[in-house]
Amino acid sequence: MLLHLSTWAEVGEFLKRSRTIAVPIGSNEQHGPTGLLGTDWLCPEIIAHEAQRTADILIAPTFNIGMAQHHLGFPGTISLRPSTFIAAIGDWTRSLAVHGFERILFLNGHGGNVASIEAAFSEIYAEASFAKRRAGFALKLCNWWDLNGVGELAREQFPTGHGIHATPSEIAVTQWAFPDAIKSASYTPQIAASGPIREALDFRARYPDGRMGSDPGQATPEKGAALVKLAAQSLVRELDAFSREAVPG
Amino acid sequence: MLLHLSTWAEVGEFLKRSRTIAVPIGSNEQHGPTGLLGTDWLCPEIIAHEAQRTADILIAPTFNIGMAQHHLGFPGTISLRPSTFIAAIGDWTRSLAVHGFERILFLNGHGGNVASIEAAFSEIYAEASFAKRRAGFALKLCNWWDLNGVGELAREQFPTGHGIHATPSEIAVTQWAFPDAIKSASYTPQIAASGPIREALDFRARYPDGRMGSDPGQATPEKGAALVKLAAQSLVRELDAFSREAVPG
Amino acid sequence: MLLHLSTWAEVGEFLKRSRTIAVPIGSNEQHGPTGLLGTDWLCPEIIAHEAQRTADILIAPTFNIGMAQHHLGFPGTISLRPSTFIAAIGDWTRSLAVHGFERILFLNGHGGNVASIEAAFSEIYAEASFAKRRAGFALKLCNWWDLNGVGELAREQFPTGHGIHATPSEIAVTQWAFPDAIKSASYTPQIAASGPIREALDFRARYPDGRMGSDPGQATPEKGAALVKLAAQSLVRELDAFSREAVPG
Amino acid sequence: MLLHLSTWAEVGEFLKRSRTIAVPIGSNEQHGPTGLLGTDWLCPEIIAHEAQRTADILIAPTFNIGMAQHHLGFPGTISLRPSTFIAAIGDWTRSLAVHGFERILFLNGHGGNVASIEAAFSEIYAEASFAKRRAGFALKLCNWWDLNGVGELAREQFPTGHGIHATPSEIAVTQWAFPDAIKSASYTPQIAASGPIREALDFRARYPDGRMGSDPGQATPEKGAALVKLAAQSLVRELDAFSREAVPG
Amino acid sequence: MLLHLSTWAEVGEFLKRSRTIAVPIGSNEQHGPTGLLGTDWLCPEIIAHEAQRTADILIAPTFNIGMAQHHLGFPGTISLRPSTFIAAIGDWTRSLAVHGFERILFLNGHGGNVASIEAAFSEIYAEASFAKRRAGFALKLCNWWDLNGVGELAREQFPTGHGIHATPSEIAVTQWAFPDAIKSASYTPQIAASGPIREALDFRARYPDGRMGSDPGQATPEKGAALVKLAAQSLVRELDAFSREAVPG
Amino acid sequence: MLLHLSTWAEVGEFLKRSRTIAVPIGSNEQHGPTGLLGTDWLCPEIIAHEAQRTADILIAPTFNIGMAQHHLGFPGTISLRPSTFIAAIGDWTRSLAVHGFERILFLNGHGGNVASIEAAFSEIYAEASFAKRRAGFALKLCNWWDLNGVGELAREQFPTGHGIHATPSEIAVTQWAFPDAIKSASYTPQIAASGPIREALDFRARYPDGRMGSDPGQATPEKGAALVKLAAQSLVRELDAFSREAVPG
Repeated sequence: MLLHLSTWAEVGEFLKRSRTIAVPIGSNEQHGPTGLLGTDWLCPEIIAHEAQRTADILIAPTFNIGMAQHHLGFPGTISLRPSTFIAAIGDWTRSLAVHGFERILFLNGHGGNVASIEAAFSEIYAEASFAKRRAGFALKLCNWWDLNGVGELAREQFPTGHGIHATPSEIAVTQWAFPDAIKSASYTPQIAASGPIREALDFRARYPDGRMGSDPGQATPEKGAALVKLAAQSLVRELDAFSREAVPG
Repeated sequence: MLLHLSTWAEVGEFLKRSRTIAVPIGSNEQHGPTGLLGTDWLCPEIIAHEAQRTADILIAPTFNIGMAQHHLGFPGTISLRPSTFIAAIGDWTRSLAVHGFERILFLNGHGGNVASIEAAFSEIYAEASFAKRRAGFALKLCNWWDLNGVGELAREQFPTGHGIHATPSEIAVTQWAFPDAIKSASYTPQIAASGPIREALDFRARYPDGRMGSDPGQATPEKGAALVKLAAQSLVRELDAFSREAVPG
Repeated sequence: MLLHLSTWAEVGEFLKRSRTIAVPIGSNEQHGPTGLLGTDWLCPEIIAHEAQRTADILIAPTFNIGMAQHHLGFPGTISLRPSTFIAAIGDWTRSLAVHGFERILFLNGHGGNVASIEAAFSEIYAEASFAKRRAGFALKLCNWWDLNGVGELAREQFPTGHGIHATPSEIAVTQWAFPDAIKSASYTPQIAASGPIREALDFRARYPDGRMGSDPGQATPEKGAALVKLAAQSLVRELDAFSREAVPG
Repeated sequence: MLLHLSTWAEVGEFLKRSRTIAVPIGSNEQHGPTGLLGTDWLCPEIIAHEAQRTADILIAPTFNIGMAQHHLGFPGTISLRPSTFIAAIGDWTRSLAVHGFERILFLNGHGGNVASIEAAFSEIYAEASFAKRRAGFALKLCNWWDLNGVGELAREQFPTGHGIHATPSEIAVTQWAFPDAIKSASYTPQIAASGPIREALDFRARYPDGRMGSDPGQATPEKGAALVKLAAQSLVRELDAFSREAVPG
Repeated sequence: MLLHLSTWAEVGEFLKRSRTIAVPIGSNEQHGPTGLLGTDWLCPEIIAHEAQRTADILIAPTFNIGMAQHHLGFPGTISLRPSTFIAAIGDWTRSLAVHGFERILFLNGHGGNVASIEAAFSEIYAEASFAKRRAGFALKLCNWWDLNGVGELAREQFPTGHGIHATPSEIAVTQWAFPDAIKSASYTPQIAASGPIREALDFRARYPDGRMGSDPGQATPEKGAALVKLAAQSLVRELDAFSREAVPG
Repeated sequence: MLLHLSTWAEVGEFLKRSRTIAVPIGSNEQHGPTGLLGTDWLCPEIIAHEAQRTADILIAPTFNIGMAQHHLGFPGTISLRPSTFIAAIGDWTRSLAVHGFERILFLNGHGGNVASIEAAFSEIYAEASFAKRRAGFALKLCNWWDLNGVGELAREQFPTGHGIHATPSEIAVTQWAFPDAIKSASYTPQIAASGPIREALDFRARYPDGRMGSDPGQATPEKGAALVKLAAQSLVRELDAFSREAVPG
C-alpha cells in the first residue's frame, strides 16, 4: 500500500492493523558515467514499491534528497547539509508519530546518508531522553543492500568490481526498473579507484568520472530483477519482524 | 528531460544549452474523503513530466513534503516546519546554483507552501544582499493552477464547488494519472465549508472530512487530461520566457 | 490603550475585559526619493495609535524591522532575514500568549513582510500541531491597506501611479503624521517601473530611485488624514469582529 | 537626525560626513506598580532623540524588545530569547554595515540586555575572526545610566531606594517625556527587596509587585528632565569620541 | 568527589546527600608569551579539584572550550561561537537537571565567557518562563577570581601589572599545578597595554604578544599555591551556602 | 606536546614542523556498575597523552562531552544533542584551521559519537563544497579500539564478554591510569545482554546496570597497560601516515 496513493481514511484503517511504516530514503547524486542521478533514491523506492505488491505493508513517499555534499562537483547532484537533513528527518518522523506510527523503518539507498540518519535518530530520541519520557516509537535504519541475502547475491553476481559508489548492483536495479534509461559508456579504468571522501572538489579530483571502486559495466537488467525480487521479499520479512517488536508508549 | 533519469554528463550537456530548471514542489497531506495523500506533489510532477515529453526542458526530482502543519490531524499527512522547509529549499537551490543553473522555477502544487517558499527565496537572496554581491540566479514560484489558461479552464469545468482544498481540479489531475487509484465516497455536505486555517486540531474540528469549500465529486479523469495537457503546454512557454530573461552573474 | 504607556497591572485589568491585542508591524527601508525610511512601520503605528483614541483596544509596541533584504542596496534600510524574523515573531507571540492573549492581530505595513509573517504563524501553530494540542490563540495578519474601505479610498485618491512601493497612499499617511518631515523631489519618470523582486543589487539596478510603479508626488497630508481616519475606524471594527471569535483553549 | 524620518538619500549624505550611528535598545517589560511597560526602550529613545536635536548625529529606530524572560510572569512583558535577540542584533548590525557604517553604538536601557548584547557582538565579530578578516566596524554598548555624569546625578537625586529595577531615575525620565502617563500607587514596602534573577515564576514569587530594590515614588518629571538633559549631552560627546576612533576596514 | 572518576551509582548516592554540583568552565586561548593555552580552564579545574579533597562536594568534568573569538589570531586558541557555547551549556545543564541536580555552579576562568554564560542561563530559564512553569534548578556563575578573598589576595600579591588578560595570578595558579610547564620570556613593555576587544585581527594588532594590561613576570608557584588554597576554601563555602538555598521544583 | 600546556608561540613553532593535530574526543556517560563516568573521554586522552611522550606530535585538549542521550537515564551522564555536538566540532575544527592545521585527527572513545562526528565532518566540508572551493584541511575519525593491533589485543585479552558498552578493555585502560579509582561490584548476569539503542528510558529498562554485552570483571590494570602502550604506538604511526598525505589548500 502506497501512502501517497491512499486517502487519509485508508491510512487510518491501516493504523488499526499495523503501526509500522517504511520510508524509502536516498540521495540524488552523480553515479558515474552511466548511473542515473536518481539511483540512490530510486533503488529503495523500487524495492519498497515491489514489496508492497505482495504484502499488507505501508510505504511512505520517498525521501529523495540526502547528504551528498561530496558529489556537488558533478552536475545534477542535489544535497542537503547534515543539519538540514537531520531537521527534515525529524519532521517526517514527528509527523508520522502524530498519527500513531510506532515503528518507522528507513530503507536507505545511500551510504553517505548513514551517519546523518543515525544522528537524526539520536536527535529525535534526545527530545524524549531530556524530557524523561518514552519516545513512543522505534526508528530503524536499513540499507537495502544489507537486507537479508542481498549482499550475498550481489557478491555472487559481481565478485570483482562491485566497489562502493556507482556499483553494478544499484545500477542493475535501476536498469530493471527503467529499461528505457539504460546508458552506456566505456570505463577507464574498468574498475575505478577508491580512497577517502572529503569535500566536493577533492572528490572530483580523486574520482574524475565519479565512480569509487566499481565497474558498473557488469550491470544488467536481469541481475537487477533478481536483486529487486530478493530485496523485496527480505523487506517484507524485516518489516514483519519489526512489527512484532513491542514499543512502550 | 528528467534529471533523475539522466547521468551527470547529460546534465552537463544540458547546461550548455540552457541554465533553466523546473522543480516540482508540493506536499503530502490529506485531501478529503477521496483525494490522494500525494495529490499536491503528484500534480506538479504529472504536469512537469508531461511537459518534458514535448520540449527540451529539465525537470528536477520532486520536492514532495511541504508545509502542511494544519493537516496533521489527519492520518498520512507529513509536514515540514517552515524553518525546516526554508532550510531545505535553500540547500536544493544552492546545489543547483553550484552547477550553474541561473533560473530555477518551482512548480508548486500546494497553496500552503506559498508563504514558506517565498520566505525561502528571501532567505537565499539575503545571503547575496548582506554580502553586497549578485545572487547569480533568479528564483520563480509558479503554482500550477496559475499557469496560463489553467485557472480559466478549471472555472469552466467546475463553475461551483471548486473550493480551495481537495479541489475537483487537482483530484481530476491525479485521476488521469492514476486511474487505478480513483476513490469514491459520498460528500456531506456536497460542497464543504470554508474558513480560517490555524493549527491541526482546529482544522480538523472545522473541516471534519478535510475538504475546504470543494466538491471533489465533480472530478473526472477526462477533465484531468485536459488540465494536464494545457498546464504542460503553459509550463513549456513559462520556462521559455523565463529562460530568455537575463540574470547578471 | 498603548501597552508601552501602561503598567502591568493595567494590562492585567484589560485582560479581564478582552483577550485581543493588535501589533503594528512593518519595516524600515528606503521609500524612494521622498519617502521616509520608517514609512512601513510608521503607517500601521499611526493608524493603530489613532484607533485606540476612540475605542477600548490595546496596541502593542511596534515591530519596526521586517523583511527588507531587497532594499539593502539603499542606505538606511535595516532588514531581518526571514529566519530571524520568524523567530522574533514567535517570541513576541509566545510572550503575549503567556499573559492570556488569545487573539493577536498583526497590522502590517510592508508587502514584503507578508510571506514571512505567514510562515511565522505556521511555525508557531506547528508547535501545537506536532504536540497534538490546541494552540490556545488565533493569529491574524491584516495589511493596513486591506482594511475595509481603505483600498477603495486609495484607488479613488490615486487612480494612476499608486504602484506597489513608495506609494502615494503610504507617503500621504506619514505626511499627515509628520508634517515637518515632508520631503520633495522631482521624479523621473513620474511613474516608476515595475518588475520582479530579487536580491538587493538587482533591485537597485532595476529601480534606481527605489520606487516601484508609483508616483509619490500625488501624496498630500490631507489625503493622508482621510486614509488614517478611515483605516483607524476599520481597524476598530476588525478587532471587534476578531474579538467575538471563539478560540478553544 | 532620525533615520526613520529621513530618506535614503539623506542617509547617504550623512554617510559622507560620518560613519557613526546610535541605536536605542531596550526592553518592553513590567516596571512595578507605576512604571510603564515601555520604560526600558523609551528611556534610551528619549535621550537619543533629545541628543540629535543639538548635534549632527544619526539615530536609528529603537530596538524595543529585548531579553526579559524573567519578567514574563507580569502581563504586558514581551521578551526575545537570547538566541533570537542575538540573531536580530546581528541582522541590524549587518544591515548597517552594508551601508558603510563603521561605528555602531547601542544605547541600552535594560540591564538584562547586557549579556545578550555582548554575546551578540562576539557572535558578529566571530564571523570575521573565523574568516581571518577585519570586521570593518566597531560595536559599542553603552547603558544610558553609565553615560558620563548620569550615575552621579541619579545617586544625588536618589541617595536611597534607587535599586536595580523600576528605579526612580528611569521612571523620572518617562515622566518627563510622557506627563500624561504618570501613574501613582502606594508601595509596600517603600523600598523593594533584592535578590537573584531566575525564571519568571521565581521572579514573580520573589518580587510580587515587580520592583527590585527600588522606591519609584521618588521620581518626578523635573528630575527626569535633568537626567535627560545631562544624558543627551553626554551621548553627543560619547558619539563624538567614538567617531574619532579609527576602524581598519 | 570527581564525577568523571565515579560510577553512576556513586553519583546516585551523592544525589541523596546533595543536589548541588560545580562545573569548572573556561577557555583554551593564548595567554601571552609565557601563559599556557589551557590557563583559563586549568585554573578553575585546579581550584575545584583541590576543593573536593577536603569536602563532600561534586565536581563535573571541565568545560574547556569557551568564547575566545578575539584570540583566534594566535595559534592554539580554540573558540566556540556564542551561539554554540549557549547551546552546549544548555545541554550540559539539561543533562544534569535530568538527574535531579537543582543547583549548578559554573566556576569560570575566563572573563570573555561571562556574557555568553549569562545569556545561556537566560536561554535555559526562558524555556520555563515561556512554558509558565518552574525551572526546578538554579544556575550560578562564579568567576574564581571573585571567590571570597581571592581578589584581595591577588591585589596584595600584584599591586601593579595585574591587568585583565594573561594576569600574573592565573599564571601563578598554573605554575603551582604544572611546575614542569613554567615558561619564561622577556616582556616588552613590562606591563602590556589595555583597550577595547573586537575581532581577532584587531586584537592581535593592538596586543601583539597577547597580554592585556598585565605583567605575568610576577607570577610564582608559591603565589599560585596561596591563591589555590584560598580559592578552594572559598569555593567550598560558596557551594555550602548555595546548597542551603531552596529551589522550588 | 600537549597544546594546553604550551604557549601560543610554541604552537606557532610546531606549525612550522607539522600541520597535523590529534583531538581526543569522547563522552561522559555511565559505564556500568564499575566503569568510571569519564571512561570514554579518559581512554583517548590517556592514549594520546602517552603517545606524545615519545613523539613530536601535538595533542589538543580533550573534547569530553559527546552524544550520550541514551545514557541519560543513569546519574552523571552528560550529553550533547547531535545538533549541538556537530556545531561544537565545527567550531573546534574551524579554530584549528584558522591557525593553519591541515590534518585533524579525532581520536574517539565512544561508539555513540561516530555518526555525529561523521555528520559534523560532512557539515564542515559542505561549506567548501557549496562555495566551490577547497576545504584546505582533511578530517579523520579514528576510534582508539580500531588503532592498528588494538582490536586484536583486546580480543586476545577478552575472548568472551568484551561486549559493546562498559567493555573490559576500556575499563582496563582507566584502571591503569587511575589505580586509585578502581571500583568493584558483582555482575548479574556476568555477561550483560545486548540489543537496540533508543531513548534513555528504553535503554535503562533494557540494560538495568548500564552494561551492553560486556563482562567488565575481566579488566585489570596490567591489561590496560598493554592496551595503552600498543595504542599509543599505533597512534604515533597513524599520525605519521596522515601527516604525509597531501592536502591541497
